[in-house]
Amino acid sequence: MKIWFIGAGPGDPELMTRKAWRILSQADVVLHDALMDVQGMQEAAPQARWLATGKRSGRPSVEQAFICRTLVALAKQGLNVVRLKGGDPSIFGRLTEELQACRAAKIDIEIIPGVTAACAAAADLQTSLTSRGESRSVVFVTPRLGKYETNRENEWLAATMAAQTAVLYMASAHAQEICATLIAAGKSKNTPICIVENASRAGQRLKHTLFEVAQQGLPQFEGPVSLLVGEALALANIHTVNAADNVLEHQNLPRSQQAFG
Amino acid sequence: MKIWFIGAGPGDPELMTRKAWRILSQADVVLHDALMDVQGMQEAAPQARWLATGKRSGRPSVEQAFICRTLVALAKQGLNVVRLKGGDPSIFGRLTEELQACRAAKIDIEIIPGVTAACAAAADLQTSLTSRGESRSVVFVTPRLGKYETNRENEWLAATMAAQTAVLYMASAHAQEICATLIAAGKSKNTPICIVENASRAGQRLKHTLFEVAQQGLPQFEGPVSLLVGEALALANIHTVNAADNVLEHQNLPRSQQAFG
Repeated sequence: MKIWFIGAGPGDPELMTRKAWRILSQADVVLHDALMDVQGMQEAAPQARWLATGKRSGRPSVEQAFICRTLVALAKQGLNVVRLKGGDPSIFGRLTEELQACRAAKIDIEIIPGVTAACAAAADLQTSLTSRGESRSVVFVTPRLGKYETNRENEWLAATMAAQTAVLYMASAHAQEICATLIAAGKSKNTPICIVENASRAGQRLKHTLFEVAQQGLPQFEGPVSLLVGEALALANIHTVNAADNVLEHQNLPRSQQAFG
Repeated sequence: MKIWFIGAGPGDPELMTRKAWRILSQADVVLHDALMDVQGMQEAAPQARWLATGKRSGRPSVEQAFICRTLVALAKQGLNVVRLKGGDPSIFGRLTEELQACRAAKIDIEIIPGVTAACAAAADLQTSLTSRGESRSVVFVTPRLGKYETNRENEWLAATMAAQTAVLYMASAHAQEICATLIAAGKSKNTPICIVENASRAGQRLKHTLFEVAQQGLPQFEGPVSLLVGEALALANIHTVNAADNVLEHQNLPRSQQAFG
């Protein structure tokens, strides 16, 4: 008995690792989060049963305890079970609860890491999150309090303030308040902030200062959003990403036309 | 003219993304860092010229300015140029200097993100770097000062102290001093610290407390090392990883034997 926990990456199915793709091709059943392009990922495992456990901010979702029970029950049936999580499983993936359930049931596990949203967002912005002599720390942090979590607001703030670059996950709904809080805590008003919706896929990319977002807020977003804060983002290159670009890369063009276009 | 900056992932060539593999297959020339398994990655681009720029802590390496000039010169020859970096390009990848050189020369660039060492180390340890209600921030930080960098020692310390989980890059040579400094700054002596050498490949995995490392130091390592610090590591599972395990996964076994073993 063994359950594979696989990082699906930020959204583009081509940003899954080769190992993830191979293991998926041998799965009997795949329990997956609310991923960005499930259909594209299903090409890796058309033979498997795909079960959505669908977590998405503010929408109804399957209870964590039910997911843990289901994982264990499927593995005990002798099935090849894959647990597919967005991004990297170790970064805001609710992995701990599921690993503990597997350990309690004496089921072996293996984790395949993935590309986390912050790295994909930086790639979309054509910038680095660290910079020699300037930014030697980058924190991934969420100010979001889950159900039953106690209020420890100062922790996200302290972590964000102390690092030279910060990527905030699950934060866009409160971006205006967050930026005002960062300024009040001492960050420069002119600190660049970038907003990336649907990292690695078509979506909005914005570049502002903390002051601008504190004043005006942000538009509504459909997909998951990363907020990237720090001087390293001064070099971010906002260029239009549209659905057509993404589609082109997945068509079966002659080799010479595919990349390096 | 376009240069592709590609994250090679932590070391195992199978942890490269599918997109990285595809773009490599169309490269004319690949400038690569001192990667963990160049031979395995060369399978993606046997047609290309592979040029080592070899940066590795404490050993002689090609000057950054020379790398920038070479990238630009190759692209201007009309070649399909890939710059292959260990891990993810945006995390301690010296990306900024190279992007600026491309911009100055008006060469288009595209970045393909990769799996960073911290995520691969967490996967090897079978643990999460975040945990609901416990660890809602994880910082990637280096205490290492490069040539010409001014001394700003307190910055790495502040960032490490403020985050609930910290992954220290390029830090193993000074691990004893680092752990003593963290304790002096107020971290609990009993805080777990894990050490992962050659994440995703055969190497040492150790689990200690800050106090133990502050007292006894660490053994010597051959490969790159990540130090992972924080209560989230209490659940880390240290299991033996040996070269034979890794080899087995890359052999062409019948499907039924390959995975889920």
